Amino acid sequence: MHIDLKRVIKDIETLATFNATPGNGVTRLSFTKEDRQARDYIRNKMEAIGLKTWEDGYSNLFGRREGKNPKAPVIMIGSHYDSVINGGPLDGVLGVVAALEILRIFEENNIGNYYPIEMVAMNDEEGVRFGTGISNSRAMAGLIDEKELDNFKDKDGISIREAMIQFGIIPDLKDAIRPKGSIKTFIELHIEQGPVLEAERKDIGLVETIVGLDRYEVIIKGMSGHAGTTPMDKRKDALVGASEFILAVNRIAKEIGDGTVGTVGQLSLTPNASNVIPGYVNLSLDIRSTKEDNIKAFYNRLIEESEYIKSKYHIDIQITHNLYIQPVNMSDKNIALMEKVCQKLGYTYMRMNSGAGHDAMIMAKMAPSSLIFVPSKVGLSHHPDEWTDYEDIEKGIALMLNTVLELCKYE
Amino acid sequence: MHIDLKRVIKDIETLATFNATPGNGVTRLSFTKEDRQARDYIRNKMEAIGLKTWEDGYSNLFGRREGKNPKAPVIMIGSHYDSVINGGPLDGVLGVVAALEILRIFEENNIGNYYPIEMVAMNDEEGVRFGTGISNSRAMAGLIDEKELDNFKDKDGISIREAMIQFGIIPDLKDAIRPKGSIKTFIELHIEQGPVLEAERKDIGLVETIVGLDRYEVIIKGMSGHAGTTPMDKRKDALVGASEFILAVNRIAKEIGDGTVGTVGQLSLTPNASNVIPGYVNLSLDIRSTKEDNIKAFYNRLIEESEYIKSKYHIDIQITHNLYIQPVNMSDKNIALMEKVCQKLGYTYMRMNSGAGHDAMIMAKMAPSSLIFVPSKVGLSHHPDEWTDYEDIEKGIALMLNTVLELCKYE
Repeated sequence: MHIDLKRVIKDIETLATFNATPGNGVTRLSFTKEDRQARDYIRNKMEAIGLKTWEDGYSNLFGRREGKNPKAPVIMIGSHYDSVINGGPLDGVLGVVAALEILRIFEENNIGNYYPIEMVAMNDEEGVRFGTGISNSRAMAGLIDEKELDNFKDKDGISIREAMIQFGIIPDLKDAIRPKGSIKTFIELHIEQGPVLEAERKDIGLVETIVGLDRYEVIIKGMSGHAGTTPMDKRKDALVGASEFILAVNRIAKEIGDGTVGTVGQLSLTPNASNVIPGYVNLSLDIRSTKEDNIKAFYNRLIEESEYIKSKYHIDIQITHNLYIQPVNMSDKNIALMEKVCQKLGYTYMRMNSGAGHDAMIMAKMAPSSLIFVPSKVGLSHHPDEWTDYEDIEKGIALMLNTVLELCKYE
Repeated sequence: MHIDLKRVIKDIETLATFNATPGNGVTRLSFTKEDRQARDYIRNKMEAIGLKTWEDGYSNLFGRREGKNPKAPVIMIGSHYDSVINGGPLDGVLGVVAALEILRIFEENNIGNYYPIEMVAMNDEEGVRFGTGISNSRAMAGLIDEKELDNFKDKDGISIREAMIQFGIIPDLKDAIRPKGSIKTFIELHIEQGPVLEAERKDIGLVETIVGLDRYEVIIKGMSGHAGTTPMDKRKDALVGASEFILAVNRIAKEIGDGTVGTVGQLSLTPNASNVIPGYVNLSLDIRSTKEDNIKAFYNRLIEESEYIKSKYHIDIQITHNLYIQPVNMSDKNIALMEKVCQKLGYTYMRMNSGAGHDAMIMAKMAPSSLIFVPSKVGLSHHPDEWTDYEDIEKGIALMLNTVLELCKYE
């Protein structure tokens, strides 16, 4: 069975053209024109293979290859095709085009699968537009409520619900939930987005644990005033307070160690004029660790620091919880199988953790799940220069193909 | 001679309606729709008094009451009518409506002035839109060159020149320059924008020195990357570097003391997503002091700190100079005259410095100039709640009227 790398490359290159920032990396946010273009391309490719396609009530796009037992639980493969702002061409997209290629090979070789195989293309994993994340898989797991659709809004004040309706999808959260036992296993191929595989000279990373993720919105309120006439000791400068807060996040992450990371990636200030003391700052906080205790310790120490910063600068700090995902283990049984497949194919591999959240961590709540990594050049991620060599991509797809071939047989 | 406070209030209230952010303070940036509306209103009011009106090659709007000697140097009165974003209704506007009221009184009482009186309404003092400032007076003093019109752009990439042309003004910098000796004196009435007059319970502040102003654009370059997969010790986080820089500005201003202030009021970051390490930060820096040595010391210490921050966080910091204005003394002779007028009118007054830059500091390069302050409630400035009681406004206008009455006589 032959992986046709040329058509995989064509899929990757074509999807990269559905992009709001040509020349500045790939920007494809959820429920936008670029989302629509990518979705139509993927759906056409699915239908060309003869897959039965449909969308669920959250906007998950499915393509199904029927199994010899149509009532058997499905093998689900796929990933997301939305991106960050000025991101790269592979993050998410690789798992979608890998699923397409695998199902093309199944069709071309007329492979009889006992279990139905469904590929899924998700469009709101990054969470950039609405400040959420891994939304499609959460919808399948029944972890999104109606309030989230209304309360989370993009920078123009458009809610998730409004954006979906404008996109042509009538939100139906019940419809999106996958019944218990309906998924046999979920497998996602993704770029590592970190420097480990390249440094260790391994073809393949088999993920054991995906880090837990804790996300907050932080509002800092001071008092705006004239930059010239307000003496330093009379100021309530929200940006100075925010600066202490950002340095505290950086310091606490380093002090806790153990792979824990903390990031302020988003920040806006009001009124944002060079001759006015900032009165208001809004920023995002992202905390990750493979251990829940580290995440809790991080938050508790940050609250202590916030109290100090509040009194030092006469400002107010409000911390609102947006998202919490526990650290999640991937399927040991699948890892053992994939190790055997790697050995058979002659690929080098290693077990590792994922510092990034992925839909696989949510899918693991419903079915044994797997996350396969291929190496990222210089560990670069969420960056226009993000890259993985095509020969590494081919190895990732081959591992996944041979794994699905094993799993789809009647046990 | 009677100041009609009702029509002054009507002018203030009407100008406040030419506003891009109704309900959120006054926002009237240069060469915008709101600028046009305010300008048309002021011009109509000038013409109703019978003033001869015209615009110069930068966009200064003038209204002239002829003198008995049309060739004599003019007494110039006025201020600016542009605002910061979400500012108040009086900053700048007060000096414009005061000039209007004074010239209405001259006309109604048929006062014969030996020296011509020109009122000026300026529209780019705050410098918010293009990151410059006190531009109209700099144009009159010949301190703007052609490059500035092209190099300074607003957030949408529109240059000053393009904005002026869209506004209907063909930039002509030579035309805007006032010939040497053509101005006898310049007088500007302004709100204090600070807490001193209120605390000292004085009706009037007579400014002796306006602080020097040094403005920079600071670019901090790190490396963007995934917020989950990039270990803390491998990061080049531009926002963490920016935070250290902002705290350094705050600390250095306090250490130098002597009324010196330093402010970062504007900041943007790229890519500005919650799960991406910021790779690029752009921020504004504003340094002010009544003493030039303090400004120089501030900059030198900040450069030292920047070197430390660069090596600590593996980032680059570029500091570009945008604007430097020396501390400037106001006319002692005019202050002495205004003290006598205050005594005659029974107003309490004090000599003071101005922490804010004003067009009067540029006008002082061309002619003896004066800056009169009235009290600001709670010292609030560049804020929607900025306010001065109308009875204090009336006193400010009366002082200015009686001062102009003295100065306009043949000496």
